[in-house]
Amino acid sequence: MEIFVNPPKEQWPELMARVSSNDDDIAAIVNDILRKVKEGGDAAIRQIATEVEGFCPDVLQVTEEEIAASEEFVSAKLQRAINAAARNIREFHQAQTPVPVEVETMAGVVCRRRAIPIEKVGLYIPGGSAPLFSTLLMLAIPAKLAGCKEIVLCTPCGKDGQVNPAVLYAAQVCGVSKIYKIGGAQAVAAMAYGTETVPKVMKIFGPGNRFVTKAKQAVSASGVAIDMPAGPSEVMVMADENARASFVACDLLSQAEHGPDSQAILVCNDEILANEVYMEVEAQTEELPRREIVERALENSRIVVFDDVDTMVEFANGYASEHLIINMEDPWSVADRITAAGSIFIGPYSPESAGDYASGTNHTLPTMGWAASFSGVGLDSFLHYITYQELSKKGLLSLSNVIISMADAEGLTAHGNAVKVRLYNNKIERRNED
Amino acid sequence: MEIFVNPPKEQWPELMARVSSNDDDIAAIVNDILRKVKEGGDAAIRQIATEVEGFCPDVLQVTEEEIAASEEFVSAKLQRAINAAARNIREFHQAQTPVPVEVETMAGVVCRRRAIPIEKVGLYIPGGSAPLFSTLLMLAIPAKLAGCKEIVLCTPCGKDGQVNPAVLYAAQVCGVSKIYKIGGAQAVAAMAYGTETVPKVMKIFGPGNRFVTKAKQAVSASGVAIDMPAGPSEVMVMADENARASFVACDLLSQAEHGPDSQAILVCNDEILANEVYMEVEAQTEELPRREIVERALENSRIVVFDDVDTMVEFANGYASEHLIINMEDPWSVADRITAAGSIFIGPYSPESAGDYASGTNHTLPTMGWAASFSGVGLDSFLHYITYQELSKKGLLSLSNVIISMADAEGLTAHGNAVKVRLYNNKIERRNED
Repeated sequence: MEIFVNPPKEQWPELMARVSSNDDDIAAIVNDILRKVKEGGDAAIRQIATEVEGFCPDVLQVTEEEIAASEEFVSAKLQRAINAAARNIREFHQAQTPVPVEVETMAGVVCRRRAIPIEKVGLYIPGGSAPLFSTLLMLAIPAKLAGCKEIVLCTPCGKDGQVNPAVLYAAQVCGVSKIYKIGGAQAVAAMAYGTETVPKVMKIFGPGNRFVTKAKQAVSASGVAIDMPAGPSEVMVMADENARASFVACDLLSQAEHGPDSQAILVCNDEILANEVYMEVEAQTEELPRREIVERALENSRIVVFDDVDTMVEFANGYASEHLIINMEDPWSVADRITAAGSIFIGPYSPESAGDYASGTNHTLPTMGWAASFSGVGLDSFLHYITYQELSKKGLLSLSNVIISMADAEGLTAHGNAVKVRLYNNKIERRNED
Repeated sequence: MEIFVNPPKEQWPELMARVSSNDDDIAAIVNDILRKVKEGGDAAIRQIATEVEGFCPDVLQVTEEEIAASEEFVSAKLQRAINAAARNIREFHQAQTPVPVEVETMAGVVCRRRAIPIEKVGLYIPGGSAPLFSTLLMLAIPAKLAGCKEIVLCTPCGKDGQVNPAVLYAAQVCGVSKIYKIGGAQAVAAMAYGTETVPKVMKIFGPGNRFVTKAKQAVSASGVAIDMPAGPSEVMVMADENARASFVACDLLSQAEHGPDSQAILVCNDEILANEVYMEVEAQTEELPRREIVERALENSRIVVFDDVDTMVEFANGYASEHLIINMEDPWSVADRITAAGSIFIGPYSPESAGDYASGTNHTLPTMGWAASFSGVGLDSFLHYITYQELSKKGLLSLSNVIISMADAEGLTAHGNAVKVRLYNNKIERRNED
């Protein structure tokens, strides 16, 4: 982690740069997998899994018995934790329920907007070293609350053919029962196109490796929505002289341990703190089991010192961090000026891990600077809006001049006719009824 | 327009198929334009415009004088129409203002969500035969209401160097003053990357030709958000024996006149109506100035008859129409069962042209079946959500077991440390403070 003091603006883009990975090299492989699954269905999935992973489970769908049995393999302590987290996540997402809009813009012209659940959604949960059951809570709970009729879950299983029990337990807590032992790009393909066993969905959510990300990107160009563009996880900590170096250091490290391409950035207005954090990070890193990953992530990470809070805010908005921790005196005075961030953690006792797991906010958030325009996953990610308009004959009459004038000016005659035929029984109408 | 009576389900995909166009042939051209503008800025825009359009205006930015002068060239009648439409659009979009969410999920754990305007947005308004000033109202009004700080408008000018006065007048009504005489893929590039005169934006909105659409798609893969995937416009009319054939016919034709790739589909439960509409469409088409376009669009269009309303609803949801007109008895009993549509027009006196221009709803809507998962443009298209969490020390304490258990189970030690360091002054903390 290098320390930069009052870097000039020309240097900012370099300091805000993410770890970029070019995935063009895997595009051909992913497209090949997508095409094979689209054409070959389950058989193609089995063949790809055998080729890529070296094995494929006998039955792709997780049975009810397997789901029910998961409780046995999850400690009571972890069950309680998952239940508590689920309760908080449910409460915060329930509160996001949108209110229907109804406005009579003119007498006899009523406009409405309602939120409608997306009928079928697919969730991808990676397996591997860290089974992300927490991500399952973050996706399945709002999907259920939104009222999605069909929730499909794909997740890879181990060589023993079993899905991680904590993932199955979390699925059970969320009421998700259509679970398939499929991983990688082939899982995305299965949900995008449908197979004999996997239902086709309208929107696919969830993180994954490069192949999963590339596959989501590819299917999103051809009719299936995705949650958001994905990139490596990142945190920015804004701190001042009131922050404790040890708190800041462990926040940077929580991020760094996610993966070698993770990024952690400290922005502060105190060089002493900057140096303290630097040393704390070094010391804490030595104790971490994922030390190798952390050390690689720290190579992408940096400490930036500015003299004043205004410049800190400007830098933070320019970076548009997925997670932004504001560990400063009067943190809200800073938070109120942040226009680009995924989720903001306020004050000394709000570590990122609280939001990652349990406080209630969603941890599926925009990365790579997308937080300037995208939102994280919320209840509305599983909804879409339909607008309605209902005009009485009188309502149409009072709008008729407006519509006809505008249609004429845009050169669209039939648009005007749609009004004239209705109101004035114009000549086309008469001719036919003669 | 062919009539299909009770088509079997195997035939549905074919009847729901959109006019697909493969734009791979222009990908190289568009990518070349994007690269040139990214590297060459204004000079590149001038060069491309001269090459492609045969001319380039001397000054790219529209002056205040040009904007102010637009009133002279717009009839008082059209001005009144634009003002009335703007008022209705403003009222309906203002009503969509999201309510901030605040929940204390546990004592000392407060989660919030707020809507924040996207700071800089870009609007593209096509020129050409039909100057789409109505689309400018649909985009600029919610952008202003949302509170976007910078609203950039690109639109091509005529060979005389002038932007259509109705477009300028509409811009003035909406309070948009940064207007640039740039069209095509180079306009998208200018807004995506920024040039000496055109500010770089975070999200680009608006319709356009194949080059514009392709350019939006390309920049959306690299950091700039776009409103939605774009395709040709479409309408589905659901009608029963109560509908008048002449009303249905002019609704189908309002759609057909948009462009040769437009699609209009009638779904009804009455063969007599189907035949009447067929004849009405033929008769009305003859009177239309855009008859050639209409006739080509009608080749993509069809009439589908089913015996019962349930099947009509199923077909409509499968098609997921951009515009859906329900011209049936008790239209709400049908509308309540529609889960996939952009905007729904209820009853005999709600033609699509009402929503296209003036009722208050937005006419920028998802096409190509995207209405199953996407929403049309609304106030929230110009906002993004940031979540916030604020834990007191006591709040973190009450969540600590939950966080630590879940972090341990996911194998993320530093995530747990972020809690332990804060609450228990764990050994790393102590060592450093000794």
